[in-house]
Amino acid sequence: MIDITLPDGSIRQYPEGTSSMDIARSISEGLARKVLAARVNGQVLDAARPINQSANLQLLTWNDTDGKNTFWHSSAHLMAEAVESIFPGVKFWVGPPVENGFYYDMDLGDRKMNEEDLAILEKKMNELAKQNNVYVRKEISKNDAINYFTEKGDEYKLDLLSGLTDGEISFYTQGSFTDLCRGPHIPSTGLIKAIKLTSVAGAYWKGDEKNKMLTRVYGVTFPSQKELDEHLAMLEEAKKRDHRKLGKELGIFTMDDDVGPGLVLWMPNGTIVIEELEKLAKESENAAGYKRVVTPHIAKENLYITSGHLPYYEDSMYPPMELEGQKYYLKAMNCPHHHKIFAAEPRSYKDLPLRLAEYGTCYRYEQSGELFGLMRVRCLHMNDAHIYCTKDQFYEEFRAVNEMYLKYFKIFGVDKYVMRLSLHSPEKLGQKYVNEPELWKETEALVRDVLIRTKTPFVEVQDEAAFYGPKIDVQIWSAIGREFTLATNQVDFAQGRRFKLEYTTADNKGETPLIIHRAPLGTHERFIGFLLEHYAGKFPLWLAPMQVKVLPISDKFLPYARSVADKLKKADIRCEVDDRNEKIGKKIRDTEMMKVPLMLVVGEKEMNEDKVAVRRQGKGDQGTRPVDELIAELVYEIKERKETEA
Amino acid sequence: MIDITLPDGSIRQYPEGTSSMDIARSISEGLARKVLAARVNGQVLDAARPINQSANLQLLTWNDTDGKNTFWHSSAHLMAEAVESIFPGVKFWVGPPVENGFYYDMDLGDRKMNEEDLAILEKKMNELAKQNNVYVRKEISKNDAINYFTEKGDEYKLDLLSGLTDGEISFYTQGSFTDLCRGPHIPSTGLIKAIKLTSVAGAYWKGDEKNKMLTRVYGVTFPSQKELDEHLAMLEEAKKRDHRKLGKELGIFTMDDDVGPGLVLWMPNGTIVIEELEKLAKESENAAGYKRVVTPHIAKENLYITSGHLPYYEDSMYPPMELEGQKYYLKAMNCPHHHKIFAAEPRSYKDLPLRLAEYGTCYRYEQSGELFGLMRVRCLHMNDAHIYCTKDQFYEEFRAVNEMYLKYFKIFGVDKYVMRLSLHSPEKLGQKYVNEPELWKETEALVRDVLIRTKTPFVEVQDEAAFYGPKIDVQIWSAIGREFTLATNQVDFAQGRRFKLEYTTADNKGETPLIIHRAPLGTHERFIGFLLEHYAGKFPLWLAPMQVKVLPISDKFLPYARSVADKLKKADIRCEVDDRNEKIGKKIRDTEMMKVPLMLVVGEKEMNEDKVAVRRQGKGDQGTRPVDELIAELVYEIKERKETEA
Repeated sequence: MIDITLPDGSIRQYPEGTSSMDIARSISEGLARKVLAARVNGQVLDAARPINQSANLQLLTWNDTDGKNTFWHSSAHLMAEAVESIFPGVKFWVGPPVENGFYYDMDLGDRKMNEEDLAILEKKMNELAKQNNVYVRKEISKNDAINYFTEKGDEYKLDLLSGLTDGEISFYTQGSFTDLCRGPHIPSTGLIKAIKLTSVAGAYWKGDEKNKMLTRVYGVTFPSQKELDEHLAMLEEAKKRDHRKLGKELGIFTMDDDVGPGLVLWMPNGTIVIEELEKLAKESENAAGYKRVVTPHIAKENLYITSGHLPYYEDSMYPPMELEGQKYYLKAMNCPHHHKIFAAEPRSYKDLPLRLAEYGTCYRYEQSGELFGLMRVRCLHMNDAHIYCTKDQFYEEFRAVNEMYLKYFKIFGVDKYVMRLSLHSPEKLGQKYVNEPELWKETEALVRDVLIRTKTPFVEVQDEAAFYGPKIDVQIWSAIGREFTLATNQVDFAQGRRFKLEYTTADNKGETPLIIHRAPLGTHERFIGFLLEHYAGKFPLWLAPMQVKVLPISDKFLPYARSVADKLKKADIRCEVDDRNEKIGKKIRDTEMMKVPLMLVVGEKEMNEDKVAVRRQGKGDQGTRPVDELIAELVYEIKERKETEA
Repeated sequence: MIDITLPDGSIRQYPEGTSSMDIARSISEGLARKVLAARVNGQVLDAARPINQSANLQLLTWNDTDGKNTFWHSSAHLMAEAVESIFPGVKFWVGPPVENGFYYDMDLGDRKMNEEDLAILEKKMNELAKQNNVYVRKEISKNDAINYFTEKGDEYKLDLLSGLTDGEISFYTQGSFTDLCRGPHIPSTGLIKAIKLTSVAGAYWKGDEKNKMLTRVYGVTFPSQKELDEHLAMLEEAKKRDHRKLGKELGIFTMDDDVGPGLVLWMPNGTIVIEELEKLAKESENAAGYKRVVTPHIAKENLYITSGHLPYYEDSMYPPMELEGQKYYLKAMNCPHHHKIFAAEPRSYKDLPLRLAEYGTCYRYEQSGELFGLMRVRCLHMNDAHIYCTKDQFYEEFRAVNEMYLKYFKIFGVDKYVMRLSLHSPEKLGQKYVNEPELWKETEALVRDVLIRTKTPFVEVQDEAAFYGPKIDVQIWSAIGREFTLATNQVDFAQGRRFKLEYTTADNKGETPLIIHRAPLGTHERFIGFLLEHYAGKFPLWLAPMQVKVLPISDKFLPYARSVADKLKKADIRCEVDDRNEKIGKKIRDTEMMKVPLMLVVGEKEMNEDKVAVRRQGKGDQGTRPVDELIAELVYEIKERKETEA
């Protein structure tokens, strides 16, 4: 018998050679129907693979990233089967899962594929899926594999094979299609219930423009039609909410060729959003006992050798500037600078926890091809802080950080989020992970405990921790259901020692502090990109660059409109009078277009009664209100950072 | 007869060959007694030099920088005369004026000079000064000059001579001392009434450590004993107020070898001061209709070629980073980035004036030897803004900027300040200055008009404008009378064109805006350095990193002390409880040391009456006050940014 440890820590016994699917069935038939693959001791495998020794097991379904990826990778094989039946003689290169679906690169010879072909292929895929063919794995010798593809005349797979090691090669077959593949795959094609091939494009073999142009077909599949429909609707909505489009329309940001790719210039409206976010962060951090610091954007090479960023992280950094025989680098992280501030004064246990916060601007080199609007940039404004604490203080500090995340989710109406707890892998201690088995166990348990006790939804991932400790990666979903990686929250045993940071304990000994690296709002760039989509550009009142527009019905009411605006400004409300000589209908339409939350229409009646006719963005007329009463209400709404009532 | 134009624009006629001193005498004997030198058509000359054609004339006194420099340079000659009489055979290198006085480098052979020698020299100098010897200029051929110093055996002066052009060489003689010197000098030694030789040190010839070590003697002189006494007292006080010393003691800033020279790390207390200054700037700029932007710290080479910073300013910039075949530079100014934001959207005359503000961080390369605490750094946080306006709007915009400067001076208790209006030089149009004679005249007149109408003290300086327009350099004096260069305020016709910036006029034509570059608070670095000295570290309440400390007389009153602190914190007052188990006397002394403006002492009586015993920094006991009443008063004091009442 073998011991199978499930994610909740419970241990069950099974005969040797039991498969993950068998185990799923022993738990419930309903669960078994959903299982797509399994993580056995950290490795993702077919659910049908026998387990021959005691192991940690996580059953993977559609709700797990790895389950989804397996589903889409199997869908790529299904598409290949369909292509082969319609374009016999086609040769395949690779067919991986991607962020939203999958693709397969193929050589169709002289033939071309067009949009109509996609419809035909979809139909064929649906037929093949209904056959519910099993994905069968077969291990094969390198020789046999080479013979197979030589016979088939497929130079692409032969090229792939040349890089593989004999003894580690496998084929997967479903229905009539066999592919060289390391797997894993879902149990059978019948799980694929909804199919959409989204596009066909050219792609150079191995991404090299000197090579032959292959045909790349993109698709996405789901376990139900309902999920596909929702996905397509989400894509449609996402197009309207594209942060690059909204960012331009609303004067949030711009880029410029002379400045450089990935370097955002924040326009006045974007800067207001930035400042409101910083204000929120500073308020929260102030209340939580953080102290703020300001550090330069560059440092000598030596600082990054001490931190270990050099040479390991060098590819992600800007190249150095050489000055007076020294290399200077743009900072890619704020931590080394903060460590220097910790080290600048003698510290005692009475000074801990010391929480140093900075909206620091970091520079990271991303490949030109990877850059994308605000989502992938080279200049990042990070809501950063480092907490230096004793081991005894760790739990409370980490809990407080976690609470700050949850508080922010609430403010921004983020209802769906998940925290990925990334753990170390014991066999890689001393190589990928700092060799402190006890500290790892201890802090991983502490972090898990915080998540459980605060009822925070989380998943555990083996072998994805940072070098210096376990970390949490936070994923959030926008209002239209798109996933964003927001921020990380890391525990660090190692840097304190590398920098020789010390505090004096109560019994007068030197001790290295634990360090928490945290950035709940991530970067301005990514977060504002997220918010633009999340709110479709309709920021809640407190965040809106222009909060109120006063619209006089005609020039006659301009003085009154201005007096209303002055009162609003005195209450620190951002507002403007639309003093154009335009019809009120056009003024309202233009203000709606700029997504200003509140419009105050003023005419004869309003002027005589010292009132305004209130319209809310997207909600229309809200009735007439005395000016002072409305201002008091708005001030409260802004102070409390209420979600817009639109 | 020739026409002499005085700074006030008045024109007087004199015979050809009249000297500046003659002219001074024709105005008043009192004035003539104060004249040290004269600026004739922009060139500083001996007051005795005859003027042979019509010219602009400014008589220079102790109150002019060039007057002072001439005085100190002449004092260096006086010192050399004294040295030669006491150390015969001494050879001299150079003896320039410096920021506060002068020095002379000399070769004493095998002899050494010590502190006692300085006293002897001072006595000798006083004797020679009383002789009231005239400084006599003599033009001399290169050959005769070489013969003179060959005979004297002075290889240093021969070295200097080798770099000079025949026909441009002069000697100056006073008393028994003759020196190779281009001048100018003051009329006679009798003007030097008070002398202090401050130090003697070694200095390598030509600053090269491979050369011989010479002896450098520093001194300072004044036209009256009173001024010397004040200067020495100021130096004494300045030592106590040294911003580097206070900066460390008060936790304002630190530097670190691994980060790099001239790169300031702002500690938590310094960051609070920074944030209060930014808050003030943002409030003022908000009220004045500025819009804020955020721009990256780097840009491609091309941006700086367009702006003209490259290649002309290259030596003051960090070296480039080479990425993807492009050179990237750290920004040394914010203007090019702001121009790109102006250019990012079509602009119409209705959008002007557009005032773009940013607390931008710039990087400038200063020689290691020039770096000095916060005063000369390589990373500068600039209170920057650029105002894009039409010619019609210029006067009002410039006036408003000027008013902002004056408002800040008032807030910070800067009573003494002067604005240097730097003008172009008509003969250098098209070379040193953009060739727009009409625009120069027009804007110089506008700027002068603003200064006159606002009764701002100012001096005019010829031939010191920026390439692109006239500018104002602002000098302020700290509470102990030390001068600081704070900021500049510049008019710019040229960059708008270089960047092809345009707005559409009312009649639908494209027009280039005028640009005002302004930074009333200068940089955080220099301004906080100034404030540390100005306030001797005793920041006024609104700026103080820690505003209030609550001091319980014993542990028994800790809970009450904490409840008082909580109330203060709720009112956004930065405060802390001194919860150490120490005597109240020590608590007060320590709090005074940290220069916290307010101490609230609490014991039995205070607790029972819900009061606090108030002590103000340096002012002692202020009586007992109800907590809420005191808080209301402090909130008001902070909001109004009142000067501390200490």
